[in-house]
Amino acid sequence: MPSVDVAGEFETIRKLFAPLAHPEWGRGLKDDVAALPTRPGHDLVLTKDAIVEGVHFLPTDPLDTVAQKLLRTNLSDLAAKGAEPFGYLLACFWSERCGWPEREAFVAGLKADQKAFGVSLLGGDTVVTSGPASFSLTALGWAPKGVVIGRNGARVGDLVFVTGAIGDGWLGLQAAQGRLGLDPERLMALADHYRAPMPRVEFAPTIRELASASIDVSDGLIADLGHIAEASGVGIEIDLALTPLSAAANAWFEDRVDPVAALEKLVTGGDDYEIAFTAAAKDEEALRREAERRLLRLTRIGRVVAGKGVKARFANENVKFDKAGFTHR
Amino acid sequence: MPSVDVAGEFETIRKLFAPLAHPEWGRGLKDDVAALPTRPGHDLVLTKDAIVEGVHFLPTDPLDTVAQKLLRTNLSDLAAKGAEPFGYLLACFWSERCGWPEREAFVAGLKADQKAFGVSLLGGDTVVTSGPASFSLTALGWAPKGVVIGRNGARVGDLVFVTGAIGDGWLGLQAAQGRLGLDPERLMALADHYRAPMPRVEFAPTIRELASASIDVSDGLIADLGHIAEASGVGIEIDLALTPLSAAANAWFEDRVDPVAALEKLVTGGDDYEIAFTAAAKDEEALRREAERRLLRLTRIGRVVAGKGVKARFANENVKFDKAGFTHR
Repeated sequence: MPSVDVAGEFETIRKLFAPLAHPEWGRGLKDDVAALPTRPGHDLVLTKDAIVEGVHFLPTDPLDTVAQKLLRTNLSDLAAKGAEPFGYLLACFWSERCGWPEREAFVAGLKADQKAFGVSLLGGDTVVTSGPASFSLTALGWAPKGVVIGRNGARVGDLVFVTGAIGDGWLGLQAAQGRLGLDPERLMALADHYRAPMPRVEFAPTIRELASASIDVSDGLIADLGHIAEASGVGIEIDLALTPLSAAANAWFEDRVDPVAALEKLVTGGDDYEIAFTAAAKDEEALRREAERRLLRLTRIGRVVAGKGVKARFANENVKFDKAGFTHR
Repeated sequence: MPSVDVAGEFETIRKLFAPLAHPEWGRGLKDDVAALPTRPGHDLVLTKDAIVEGVHFLPTDPLDTVAQKLLRTNLSDLAAKGAEPFGYLLACFWSERCGWPEREAFVAGLKADQKAFGVSLLGGDTVVTSGPASFSLTALGWAPKGVVIGRNGARVGDLVFVTGAIGDGWLGLQAAQGRLGLDPERLMALADHYRAPMPRVEFAPTIRELASASIDVSDGLIADLGHIAEASGVGIEIDLALTPLSAAANAWFEDRVDPVAALEKLVTGGDDYEIAFTAAAKDEEALRREAERRLLRLTRIGRVVAGKGVKARFANENVKFDKAGFTHR
């Protein structure tokens, strides 16, 4: 495409983004394309997300965490499929509020995450918009040939697991919006999780070795397990009492008068970016070992049964949800 | 990412985009990622553009051609580097004007082009924005290992060529905005070229075999040749009288009182999506043969010299340009 109107776009690429580019494959961001050797014996795995200010992130969110969340949610998708990330392409639609310092912050967020997750920038485009700031990211990874884990491999008798803790995404959004009454430290931990969730990149090899079906928890635990159930043609039963909560979520939960209503918020809120997956019962011990090796919390929350949909129980009662998943307002 | 607010987004993916997805690699657009085997002996080549209504396309442009232009400009980048496209990922930021019929039109444009250029949809995201409609596309191609043609291979003594015709991009924009006085048929041909330029995908194998440096003409012929000159550390001399014009551009040109001022518009206007490249003089005959075989116009417009920058001549006079390239207003 022709270059954009703002003189700052060339400068943005040259001064801010070029230092993030892969030294060889990114061709200095000067050659319209990236070119890279493929990895023998591996499949290419791709995912792409688009985010809009006021819809997927808050106008008050600092741009370094906006960049990190965008990258991390894509890395989360790759990890849940058993793929290891190596690079990404990025489209920035800068709004009026994205001056030079904001762009520097955006790039600083990416720089930190490139180091943390072993990825580099391969290319992209930067334009200005009269609308809300928006971004799109395409993430690329490798997975050994033919082993990408889908939503559709769950078998009756499999167990259902989830990494990390559930509910911090929803609680974090409330915290970032000043709607929670908790210790400042807890509020900050929750808001941090909302703004920059931790993708389970290091668990990808275990997922592809041992999971039968897998998904990252973005729409909400119940909705995402529903996706696995539907694609696999099975039912899933989970025990809400087993839902893993963070210390901050526990502090919030203990103050609720209606535990089921509270859990409903947490398991339907979304934005957790943990991995929910199914695996054969015989592999539970190996899964626990792999999780412990990575100091990663792993919780068995249910099992795969004949039937369809997700059934949740709490204290031996069936729980009905008004809605299964998070929808952006 | 969590799903977006509008119920129509799931429907948009299921009913409109899923039929465009690669039957195997796209995983039905139901599994967060695409996964595909790599091509032995080939490098992966990637490019990504972002476009915004009112900046890169007109609010009056029909959405089928918006989709086609977005896809084709990316395919043009791949072709200029000698890569053959196989797929793409797409992010749609729909504005208020993008109702169901407009989305259907967008998808119809893609469908026609998928067939024409042998690519398929691999994945993406669809969200709504309160701002102008915006889109981003990541295109993927293969090139035999190590042969991607950069901007930096031009050698003193090489000849400078361009495919097709130059200036229809700029004239087409004027035509689409009702600013040109020409036969309706010519106006339509020009506006069509602006809205859906023809990427030279079929010339990619010739480019990678015979070009020393190559770029697609998006910023404007002079500006893009300037990119080659700068990256290669050489100068480029062209003869403006050799600029290849379409029949419509010729009709417009013949009515101008100042031919140099007219040519300046055409060679700096941009949006042509032809391939400008350099090649050794000994390869000219082979280049002409390959172009003729494809019924593709190929014009030698100049040569590579020692020095720097682009020097243009017309009727044995040096021509100075106010600006080298197109900038979006």
